[in-house]
Amino acid sequence: MTIAQPYLLFLADAPHAKTAFGVRHWRPEACAAQFRYPGSALDLALPEMTPAQAAAAGVRTLLIGAAPAGGMLPERWIADLVAALRAGMDIASGLHARLTDVPELVAEAKAAGRRLHDVRHPTESFTIGGFERRPGKRLITVGADCAVGKMYTALAIERELRARAVAADFRATGQTGILIVGSGISVDAVISDFVAAAAASLSPAAAPDHWDVVEGQGSLFHPAYAGVTLGLLHGSQPDAMVLCADPSRTTLGDFDAYPQPDLAECVTRYTDCARLTNPDARVVGVSLNTSAFSAAAAEALIAQTADRLGLPCVDPVRTGVAAIVDRLDLSGG
Amino acid sequence: MTIAQPYLLFLADAPHAKTAFGVRHWRPEACAAQFRYPGSALDLALPEMTPAQAAAAGVRTLLIGAAPAGGMLPERWIADLVAALRAGMDIASGLHARLTDVPELVAEAKAAGRRLHDVRHPTESFTIGGFERRPGKRLITVGADCAVGKMYTALAIERELRARAVAADFRATGQTGILIVGSGISVDAVISDFVAAAAASLSPAAAPDHWDVVEGQGSLFHPAYAGVTLGLLHGSQPDAMVLCADPSRTTLGDFDAYPQPDLAECVTRYTDCARLTNPDARVVGVSLNTSAFSAAAAEALIAQTADRLGLPCVDPVRTGVAAIVDRLDLSGG
Repeated sequence: MTIAQPYLLFLADAPHAKTAFGVRHWRPEACAAQFRYPGSALDLALPEMTPAQAAAAGVRTLLIGAAPAGGMLPERWIADLVAALRAGMDIASGLHARLTDVPELVAEAKAAGRRLHDVRHPTESFTIGGFERRPGKRLITVGADCAVGKMYTALAIERELRARAVAADFRATGQTGILIVGSGISVDAVISDFVAAAAASLSPAAAPDHWDVVEGQGSLFHPAYAGVTLGLLHGSQPDAMVLCADPSRTTLGDFDAYPQPDLAECVTRYTDCARLTNPDARVVGVSLNTSAFSAAAAEALIAQTADRLGLPCVDPVRTGVAAIVDRLDLSGG
Repeated sequence: MTIAQPYLLFLADAPHAKTAFGVRHWRPEACAAQFRYPGSALDLALPEMTPAQAAAAGVRTLLIGAAPAGGMLPERWIADLVAALRAGMDIASGLHARLTDVPELVAEAKAAGRRLHDVRHPTESFTIGGFERRPGKRLITVGADCAVGKMYTALAIERELRARAVAADFRATGQTGILIVGSGISVDAVISDFVAAAAASLSPAAAPDHWDVVEGQGSLFHPAYAGVTLGLLHGSQPDAMVLCADPSRTTLGDFDAYPQPDLAECVTRYTDCARLTNPDARVVGVSLNTSAFSAAAAEALIAQTADRLGLPCVDPVRTGVAAIVDRLDLSGG
């Protein structure tokens, strides 16, 4: 799935726009304009354009980067989406509700020769491969829990690598990441038999000094999603893993009955599991989301964690990720 | 997915009928008749009936228990499948090719008010649950590799438990098992996000002394399928695991580049992973497929394995599974 950029970020009258803000932050060059309805409280500090104006200015895709209440596609948005198609733009959406379930959009897209991208719903087929080692280097972010900063950390590492003139590509595995970079696979929506194969296809053979930075999903310690995590880990055959955690939590974010795992146990389990497909796999650092703590408390937590685990520890927002990237072998060896 | 029994086992002109022979072996009471084309070399030692005769005799479902070359549904079978629908029977198939992709069958089934069961292709939706501990006891067969006897071992344990007057149900997770017992979920065809939830729904809360015997899938040591295995393990929250292996293999059956894992490492990894959702989980025995060995060599292998791992070891075909069932806590405590 490859989505043509640049984007018109469609905010409409939505109360939140996490995806749009993510695209704006990580790929400003992909963001040409925004389209808000009167009264919108959101602002991405981009030029205001209607779909017709955006198309005339060379914009390729209207991106639904805002979540309406309930996740359904509001009827009142349809006319503007149709206008975008007629003006020559594709539409991309990260909503659960499918664009392709709206007959009017399907008909208009067909008539206009445009594409509808439902990035939560993969349409590709995957072939089970041989899982032999592929050339190129791979890093994956892994979690003690869900929603602990795996996407953010991976994007920060991609940015840091590129700043050091290292060839690096973020590989998106969830809807927000896919919309940010314009390609990827929602691995949790793939038929379970093909998750590892899909992950393998996402970071194909590359030059020896190229780094793929794969967005991890879920957690090996989450009762509902660990299978997705493991399939993604095996298919990605990472050389390096960065463990992401939220030290303010004592239980899983969405399952109170389950405790947060110990970080040392996470390092061991992820390493044991990853070595099935890459015997050189190791955890190279820890990324904490310390937003719930004061600056002083966060600094102490980061130092303690680094000391206890013997690994560089960062908060990508507070400290950046240079301390982790310093530890990667960037020689292509 | 619940399939009405008894069955007419449809062999037609297929060269192999692994599923039909499995149903005949494990659920003889569900097998009313067979239907062969002239020249068939297969024989299930059942009465011969056409679809019309079978329906008149009270048969509920025509079961496609034979695999045609290529896995596609042969055009020459369609007329007999239509006859079965018109005579009042459902049709169940474990083929990759879907009955519901054949417009003629869909139309005839609708007209006759009958059902088409494509057991490889789940149609249910699953809800992510709380993964709290459920009452009742659960055993799952787990593998060092794929195709090492997990279904056979689970069915043998169900039979042994029932022979001891213990309430027990085999829970099928693959197409052959589903056709044998008439219900289940092909977990490897479920969207990856929902595998653990699907597995949880397959062995619901039960009486404290009831045993669900869950058919395992794949292996934690298989690079392509470990994610399915882990999701199934977590959703099943097993009290007991039986480790299945084929000691004649040195590499994975379908991936020469991967070695067979050490059985002691399997015991450790499966236990570590299963304890996430059931802290009492433990491996209670080992089931070897020793069909490649002489009786004397098999006996020695079984004894050595039991001694080395400190666990009862069986070959379900040669020795039965009583030695493992002896070690289960059947008190309901």
